[in-house]
Amino acid sequence: MKITRGYQDWPAGSVLVEFGRTRVLCAASVQEGVPRWRTGSGLGWVTAEYAMLPSATNTRSSRESVKGRIGGRTHEISRLVGRSLRACIDMAALGENTITLDCDVIQADGGTRTAAITGAYVALADAVTWLGAAKRLSDPKPLSCSIQAVSVGVVDGRVRLDLPYEEDSRAEVDMNVVATDHGTLVEVQGTGEGATYTRSTMDKMLDFALAGCGELARLQESVLAEPYPGELPGGAA
Amino acid sequence: MKITRGYQDWPAGSVLVEFGRTRVLCAASVQEGVPRWRTGSGLGWVTAEYAMLPSATNTRSSRESVKGRIGGRTHEISRLVGRSLRACIDMAALGENTITLDCDVIQADGGTRTAAITGAYVALADAVTWLGAAKRLSDPKPLSCSIQAVSVGVVDGRVRLDLPYEEDSRAEVDMNVVATDHGTLVEVQGTGEGATYTRSTMDKMLDFALAGCGELARLQESVLAEPYPGELPGGAA
Amino acid sequence: MKITRGYQDWPAGSVLVEFGRTRVLCAASVQEGVPRWRTGSGLGWVTAEYAMLPSATNTRSSRESVKGRIGGRTHEISRLVGRSLRACIDMAALGENTITLDCDVIQADGGTRTAAITGAYVALADAVTWLGAAKRLSDPKPLSCSIQAVSVGVVDGRVRLDLPYEEDSRAEVDMNVVATDHGTLVEVQGTGEGATYTRSTMDKMLDFALAGCGELARLQESVLAEPYPGELPGGAA
Amino acid sequence: MKITRGYQDWPAGSVLVEFGRTRVLCAASVQEGVPRWRTGSGLGWVTAEYAMLPSATNTRSSRESVKGRIGGRTHEISRLVGRSLRACIDMAALGENTITLDCDVIQADGGTRTAAITGAYVALADAVTWLGAAKRLSDPKPLSCSIQAVSVGVVDGRVRLDLPYEEDSRAEVDMNVVATDHGTLVEVQGTGEGATYTRSTMDKMLDFALAGCGELARLQESVLAEPYPGELPGGAA
Amino acid sequence: MKITRGYQDWPAGSVLVEFGRTRVLCAASVQEGVPRWRTGSGLGWVTAEYAMLPSATNTRSSRESVKGRIGGRTHEISRLVGRSLRACIDMAALGENTITLDCDVIQADGGTRTAAITGAYVALADAVTWLGAAKRLSDPKPLSCSIQAVSVGVVDGRVRLDLPYEEDSRAEVDMNVVATDHGTLVEVQGTGEGATYTRSTMDKMLDFALAGCGELARLQESVLAEPYPGELPGGAA
Amino acid sequence: MKITRGYQDWPAGSVLVEFGRTRVLCAASVQEGVPRWRTGSGLGWVTAEYAMLPSATNTRSSRESVKGRIGGRTHEISRLVGRSLRACIDMAALGENTITLDCDVIQADGGTRTAAITGAYVALADAVTWLGAAKRLSDPKPLSCSIQAVSVGVVDGRVRLDLPYEEDSRAEVDMNVVATDHGTLVEVQGTGEGATYTRSTMDKMLDFALAGCGELARLQESVLAEPYPGELPGGAA
Repeated sequence: MKITRGYQDWPAGSVLVEFGRTRVLCAASVQEGVPRWRTGSGLGWVTAEYAMLPSATNTRSSRESVKGRIGGRTHEISRLVGRSLRACIDMAALGENTITLDCDVIQADGGTRTAAITGAYVALADAVTWLGAAKRLSDPKPLSCSIQAVSVGVVDGRVRLDLPYEEDSRAEVDMNVVATDHGTLVEVQGTGEGATYTRSTMDKMLDFALAGCGELARLQESVLAEPYPGELPGGAA
Repeated sequence: MKITRGYQDWPAGSVLVEFGRTRVLCAASVQEGVPRWRTGSGLGWVTAEYAMLPSATNTRSSRESVKGRIGGRTHEISRLVGRSLRACIDMAALGENTITLDCDVIQADGGTRTAAITGAYVALADAVTWLGAAKRLSDPKPLSCSIQAVSVGVVDGRVRLDLPYEEDSRAEVDMNVVATDHGTLVEVQGTGEGATYTRSTMDKMLDFALAGCGELARLQESVLAEPYPGELPGGAA
Repeated sequence: MKITRGYQDWPAGSVLVEFGRTRVLCAASVQEGVPRWRTGSGLGWVTAEYAMLPSATNTRSSRESVKGRIGGRTHEISRLVGRSLRACIDMAALGENTITLDCDVIQADGGTRTAAITGAYVALADAVTWLGAAKRLSDPKPLSCSIQAVSVGVVDGRVRLDLPYEEDSRAEVDMNVVATDHGTLVEVQGTGEGATYTRSTMDKMLDFALAGCGELARLQESVLAEPYPGELPGGAA
Repeated sequence: MKITRGYQDWPAGSVLVEFGRTRVLCAASVQEGVPRWRTGSGLGWVTAEYAMLPSATNTRSSRESVKGRIGGRTHEISRLVGRSLRACIDMAALGENTITLDCDVIQADGGTRTAAITGAYVALADAVTWLGAAKRLSDPKPLSCSIQAVSVGVVDGRVRLDLPYEEDSRAEVDMNVVATDHGTLVEVQGTGEGATYTRSTMDKMLDFALAGCGELARLQESVLAEPYPGELPGGAA
Repeated sequence: MKITRGYQDWPAGSVLVEFGRTRVLCAASVQEGVPRWRTGSGLGWVTAEYAMLPSATNTRSSRESVKGRIGGRTHEISRLVGRSLRACIDMAALGENTITLDCDVIQADGGTRTAAITGAYVALADAVTWLGAAKRLSDPKPLSCSIQAVSVGVVDGRVRLDLPYEEDSRAEVDMNVVATDHGTLVEVQGTGEGATYTRSTMDKMLDFALAGCGELARLQESVLAEPYPGELPGGAA
Repeated sequence: MKITRGYQDWPAGSVLVEFGRTRVLCAASVQEGVPRWRTGSGLGWVTAEYAMLPSATNTRSSRESVKGRIGGRTHEISRLVGRSLRACIDMAALGENTITLDCDVIQADGGTRTAAITGAYVALADAVTWLGAAKRLSDPKPLSCSIQAVSVGVVDGRVRLDLPYEEDSRAEVDMNVVATDHGTLVEVQGTGEGATYTRSTMDKMLDFALAGCGELARLQESVLAEPYPGELPGGAA
């Protein structure tokens, strides 16, 4: 896993996550105000949109804008990313600002949704730094923890972490786990299409997943130890 | 939980599931042939569509057909129901038939997706019986197990099964578990929006869920012990 | 024809109409305020949406929300139901409230639109009672008459009332008549696809239709003589 | 009412109908083959699409192609026009040809749907002549009668024929009648929004309508007595 | 080229342009206020929508409202017409009024977009006259020049002006030029699909185009020398 | 301008174009067969889709897949890119293969459409090499020339090449020119919104544009002199 901050110039946070052949661009854009149903509450909002470039997949996939509708998988992952990142942020501290996390898959080879979540956290952290420098936060420390995600699969009866697409597509069980650097869980999604799995496999997958998330948390921390990549409002750097 | 078979006259399987105030109509319609991408494979297909009547919710919800697009939540649940039911059926035994499971929520008070899955299994079993009587199965026993689902929540720190909407909406953690009558897992989706949860809470929720699913499996079994509700093709009854 | 009030818990009026094998769920939901183009007029609004469950028909019909557009037939019937029910209500007495009539066909076997209108009147009457108890009407008696509808067909040269689908589909002429309990007409739609019809057939069909509507008016009256099915705002019952 | 044949060069039939300030362009385009569900039946098909130019109405109306969906009124009228014109044509004689009737309102001042039907018949007759000259009919005389339509309204208690928009919009009852030159009825649609009407008003409106249709039938006949406006296939003129 | 003003009764400007077999109806509708993003600026707005009747083309084209989306060509031409006409009008003088130019092709035989622009200018001039009479302009002379457009093609190596469809479709190069009566350029769009063209061909095409636009400018001027066709607000004529 | 080949692993051609702050990813995906209307002709097809990441612009732009429709600008540029690239390829030599050019803007700062065209040519050349190695071309040399594009603007009365967004947005005239390495023109689009321009400015802009395209042609040539970046089918490299 390689994480590059400051990949784009315009968004407050922009992170390229590379993991095996999978590459996801996670951008955090800041907008004043919140959706209408939240206006006046004093609370901020974080939302996410996940998408894949047509050229990101082994065989070209058709463009959802051209089809005129978003597919079920895209909807599902967008909702998962948004929900996961909202778990680490204090909306009152954020104040009436909206942060949109755009996770665009440049190249896909398995694990794009978990890479997206892991990268989106770093982009979110940069956007929060930017808002702080712009003196637009209600409270200086809105982030209570960091967020990571991994996928775990069972292939040929063995539990494995972060499978590439070719192996993932023949996994008997597939589980995505979103966790925090405190070791707690945010989201667990385990699916056995074509096969079911026992409680003890479930337990083993959770062990692997929490260990993997711990490593990612340390990587995020070391990457974010570097200064903000770009110019901050108010001349701070 | 109350399960009524033969609720409608036309579909091969039609089941009304009532659970507290929640009422879901699960219909299994049989169609010859499979989607184009599967034609000629000799394999069948099972798919699901979940929807809510506008009048099913406390405050009227707007109709997705009128909005001209299906929301993220609807997409997500439709996919979950389809995936869950595909876990119990041998597609080769089904032969090139498509079974569509329509889960329409008549009244909602929490747990509609898990009620839908539990009812859809019974409708599916009836549709399989119908196909067998019509001599359209490639193999007489396509179902390898039964499928149940429950929701588990943590409210005020206590783990609870199948919360009504009012309590569900203030649950700190919300988990849906789909299981089989063999005690294995098909799908686990645990979400902590606004809060995260520990590994030990996770374990406790799984205990509750598997116990709940076991009870539902016994209910399904006793309901399906009754003869097919209606006329079968070929005069069988 | 059987009419069951209080079929659902949430809407102010909820009525299940059963007629032969046809079953339609008519719900009347109350919302404060009126559409933007009517705001400030002091007048209320009544609108209707008609739809069919995919499993309601002999052969499963595809879901309009999935197709992303509403078909011509659905549009036409929704407009007919709304127009018909608006004929019996004094919009000034209703005050700036909107009543939405959702007519969802659970099972179809001919005459779904006329069953929907007949049931929607009963749901509307319950919703008006509810609004009255909530002291939200500008005037206590907004309903000036009751509304009923029947279909009349000519099959093999004979005029017949309320044909089931199998006969309806081979009718030479098909007419829907919406009337009031005062014996006046609200809407007449007579269509002869594949054949035309004489003025004297037209006259005979109107005779049959008005007689049929009279019977339905008496049924509605007796059903509405029972108390409101559920709890009324302000503790009235 | 003025009817001009040969208004456009490309369609097999093209008729401009002018009636008061209302102007509707009715084009009949011929296409080999029929929709998929009718292929191989040996029967032809006639369908219609009604639309209004944005500039046709007193206040500019927005374009349905830009809104991305067709409104209920447009759907309803398109279906009415198609159904009405199918009443006069023998589909077996037409053979596997499709005739599409495009009724585009250039200027609207009441009665656009009835003007559309009356004009569409003349365009259809020309298209049939064209098909005959091209030797593409299965039988030389597919038209069994002519089709006309009028609107009748009740204004200030008096029954009146073909009201302009300003009067039509305050009519207590509004009825559209489609008839044949044999004096039989094809379609009757009577609506009393805001008021209901008695059986005797209904009878009087039908009298007026049938008289009006008779006059239109004579006008159509005299217009169609002129030769085909343009060149026919095979050099016939 | 023939230009008929006052073709419709309702819009402030309505012009029928005929050019060879091509006929385009250009209507300029006036609306108080401007789009939201421009409100309060004191500036007006001019926008355009181009469309083709299904019956306008040699082979019937399908209706974009029925397809539920506007094609690329329609979008492109609508934007071109709007951009071109905005070049001649002083938005501050127009004041916060919106003029919508609807260009509907009645019959197509090449050059519909250039005919649309040339006609839209005349409709725009009439709409401006109407606004002046209604005392709704901020400044009495918002139009700084007139706008014309021609198409130029290279067929069999020879540069030609305004080709009919049959020749246009085999042109090696196709160029649309929008110019003003001052001889300056507003828009040049030259395309060589299937072939490329030299700089000297480009120069020659521009010579032809500017000469053609000059002629059209004189025609527009003479047509607009006639009084406003219809009644002006405030009794002016 | 910097051009990086082999940016992605899956498409047959994948090129990152960087120009100032503008970055566009151009991918050429190969698919067997052609669209239905071209099947059996023996001719290939080249098409293009242009899009912008929401995070590519100074202020986040909304996602067209979420809006459910593609905007006019996107349509227009997609068509321009496709048309431009089709000018350099012999469709008979290509054989019945489709090449889709996806141009996704990663970061926008003016000139995205011209950068897209210039990069798409390089991606197309790689895809053609790939097809040749796979022995799927009907003829070994389908490309007759190379394609480049530049934008030219007039700012403060001075003609300038390839303006960044900030200057571009206040240009009086804006022209995009697509040319070949033979010095011929493929497409010229000159627009003066808010101002018009003289013939002599037009001539000067063309001079600048052709000089700029010449330089890009040399860059493309030198970049393509390097071997194919990746593995070719059949083991060629």
